[in-house]
Amino acid sequence: MAQKPSIPKGTRDFGPQEMAERNYIFDTIRDVYRLYGYAPIETPAQENLSTLLGKYGDEGDKLLFRILNSGDAFAQVDLAAEDGPSLTRKICEKGLRYDLTVPFARYVVQHQNDLSFPFKRYQIQPVWRADRPQKGRYREFYQCDADVIGSRSLLSELELVQIVDEVFSRLDIRVAVKINNRKVLSGLAEICGAPDKVVDITVAIDKLDKIGLDAVKAEMGERGLTPQAIAVVERILALEGTTAEKIAAMRVLMQGGSASGIVSETGLRGLDELEELFGLLAAAGIRQEVAMDLSLARGLNYYTGAIFEVKALDWAIGSICGGGRYDNLTGIFGLPDMSGVGISFGADRIYDVLKGLDKFPRSLASATTLLLANMDAEAVPYLLGLARDLRAEGVSCEIYPDTTRLKKQFDYADRKAIPFLSINGSDEVAGRKVNIKRLDSGEQRLFDRDDLAAILAFLCGNTD
Amino acid sequence: MAQKPSIPKGTRDFGPQEMAERNYIFDTIRDVYRLYGYAPIETPAQENLSTLLGKYGDEGDKLLFRILNSGDAFAQVDLAAEDGPSLTRKICEKGLRYDLTVPFARYVVQHQNDLSFPFKRYQIQPVWRADRPQKGRYREFYQCDADVIGSRSLLSELELVQIVDEVFSRLDIRVAVKINNRKVLSGLAEICGAPDKVVDITVAIDKLDKIGLDAVKAEMGERGLTPQAIAVVERILALEGTTAEKIAAMRVLMQGGSASGIVSETGLRGLDELEELFGLLAAAGIRQEVAMDLSLARGLNYYTGAIFEVKALDWAIGSICGGGRYDNLTGIFGLPDMSGVGISFGADRIYDVLKGLDKFPRSLASATTLLLANMDAEAVPYLLGLARDLRAEGVSCEIYPDTTRLKKQFDYADRKAIPFLSINGSDEVAGRKVNIKRLDSGEQRLFDRDDLAAILAFLCGNTD
Repeated sequence: MAQKPSIPKGTRDFGPQEMAERNYIFDTIRDVYRLYGYAPIETPAQENLSTLLGKYGDEGDKLLFRILNSGDAFAQVDLAAEDGPSLTRKICEKGLRYDLTVPFARYVVQHQNDLSFPFKRYQIQPVWRADRPQKGRYREFYQCDADVIGSRSLLSELELVQIVDEVFSRLDIRVAVKINNRKVLSGLAEICGAPDKVVDITVAIDKLDKIGLDAVKAEMGERGLTPQAIAVVERILALEGTTAEKIAAMRVLMQGGSASGIVSETGLRGLDELEELFGLLAAAGIRQEVAMDLSLARGLNYYTGAIFEVKALDWAIGSICGGGRYDNLTGIFGLPDMSGVGISFGADRIYDVLKGLDKFPRSLASATTLLLANMDAEAVPYLLGLARDLRAEGVSCEIYPDTTRLKKQFDYADRKAIPFLSINGSDEVAGRKVNIKRLDSGEQRLFDRDDLAAILAFLCGNTD
Repeated sequence: MAQKPSIPKGTRDFGPQEMAERNYIFDTIRDVYRLYGYAPIETPAQENLSTLLGKYGDEGDKLLFRILNSGDAFAQVDLAAEDGPSLTRKICEKGLRYDLTVPFARYVVQHQNDLSFPFKRYQIQPVWRADRPQKGRYREFYQCDADVIGSRSLLSELELVQIVDEVFSRLDIRVAVKINNRKVLSGLAEICGAPDKVVDITVAIDKLDKIGLDAVKAEMGERGLTPQAIAVVERILALEGTTAEKIAAMRVLMQGGSASGIVSETGLRGLDELEELFGLLAAAGIRQEVAMDLSLARGLNYYTGAIFEVKALDWAIGSICGGGRYDNLTGIFGLPDMSGVGISFGADRIYDVLKGLDKFPRSLASATTLLLANMDAEAVPYLLGLARDLRAEGVSCEIYPDTTRLKKQFDYADRKAIPFLSINGSDEVAGRKVNIKRLDSGEQRLFDRDDLAAILAFLCGNTD
């Protein structure tokens, strides 16, 4: 009895068309990473659970895919004496990669003596999460990360924004890049008189766009902030003007000018960083929209300086790229004081944006330029020679494998979106001719077999 | 207490240099697959265990990496009532991809209504096997497969040999392609009077190169073949001459001319196929060495027609590519009568051959062409503009992120094998000049900042 084939929920097959579209995204990102001197690395799909556990919070630990030890994992275990969690620990020592950041930190520490710092790497690989599958959320998906580790220079932040600018300009997606700084958020909590409430404040103000100011204020109250503290936050959220004007106004508040009168050195350092970064952005010339957003707080527990987030302007789908600076990522693996900054492109969401806006290039359609119809077994050696010469010029072509009726071969070309069909019978072979039809326009031309230049010009669209 | 970071045994990290070398192999294979009209697909790393189990023999089943069901997999199980195997079945329903062939068969059956047959696909993805790690054998490694499914034409066999020829010619590796046919092996068993002993015969003669004729004959005896049968095999192994002469001699034997007098229709069909394939190979013109090898038997239980194997001539490492025709791969998933033929390149072994023969191109060394030294924060905006213009021309360049001493920046360029270094201080900025040094020769040139053509010519080596 044959099995009905299927794949695990939350996973996907990618056929030729989707592969072409996805590779267009990956190749674009990869090309830009290379232009900026980022070098590729790859890490194994399986990591030791000791590397992964405790790095993503309790929720993340639950979402790790665990791999059963190979061999007879249960042979040495008294099952009756175990409960589930203790058995899991004994029989599973490895898990699937959950993101690219922790394996990168592990890589840097493990190979530190072979690396040249600052180390600029990119990594494009799948990750796995045992999340509940839903629309746009998968259990296997690719991440496309770039990080610089081993330098505190804000030129790295600039460079990552330049990369974002270049990638989305090449993909023809209009985006808004939002930038904030964790130190400014810490400073905000300090001048509110609630330095321990930075998470409460930022979780609340992060919702400003969605729920509005009154609801944000109510939430801050529920989270234990005093009316005086809420008033300080409200004043900052109400700031208007250019980035320079907002920074200047914030500077006054961080210097003791808020209702609390508290001075925040941390907040002032964050403002210095923002000011320097926006100065560099102006000098470099960014085409896409870039703005400071004091309510941006993604990945707060993780970032220590700049925070980035990118959204598409013409397609509502949430963040399509994000990142920031982290000062102690490799500390958990025994290498302290390595500051890093990185970004990650969300390939699946970028795919949805390109689909939604119909921005994939038309030329992605087919891998094959020319199908050589197989009408007559006697003609096959003639076709083999022609195919060899065309491939030597870089033209992808196929000889239909079976000698069969033309209708079937036409259908094959049509379904595979092959743009040109060459039909040659004994007459063409005898006269050393090549008959080629352009399937979209129906235009048909007869060439001398040896006039390869004319054939190539027709196939490559360079005809008059 | 910091963890000492490590990765699971049998897995590997790939740094920038290895990535460049590995991508050179993958890109070469991918480019050739594309030239022949093969389209890429990808399947998920995780497959249902029902898809994988029973496809690779008992030994293969043991080598599957099993993934623990997510969530609290043990919650519904009475551990005390279980033994290991029954518990494994209950708590593991997925496994990691073990090869690319079974997922491909599953893919074809699952998506049969969306595919255009004959379907030509390539797939380059990692697979995982819980094998005992040893030199050259890993628990995670890439396979690079191409298959045609849905045609019985021998033009597909030809095409795969052409691809092998082209790939290894591009990689500058001299190879020998050996070809056999499963039907001939079946015919051989038939005319020996031992049609059920085809595996015994082929396992023995497959060792001819290693153990010599006498040992092969002894083994066949131990495997229950009669002296008369062994004499028939010996006669075939002793055949000499051209491929055409060997086929002619075999044909006589398969037509009843052997000691047994038995006629093998299957063997004769196999000889017809070999004759046709070698005729096509001659018509197509293959540069590498191709030979019939009647002792070749790899993957016997799987293949039903052609069998291929490729070895490097100048580096002893075993098979670096192999494949063959299978007539019923998709039958296990409910789609009968789909004949297919495929090949698989062994990327890790090809890597070892290229390393061993020192055949990797020199130009793979660095991702970055030019390092712009950072001597003076005041000069950074000038460098930003220069970097922007060079990247727009496709030149990968980096600005060193920290303003620091030149020695450190020189070392960085050296360790990253960056070929050009540009050192610009306030004089260059004021005079709109660009100073570039070629690090291998020490040659140093001063350019006008706006003479981008001259700068590009120097960086791209097009100088006189």
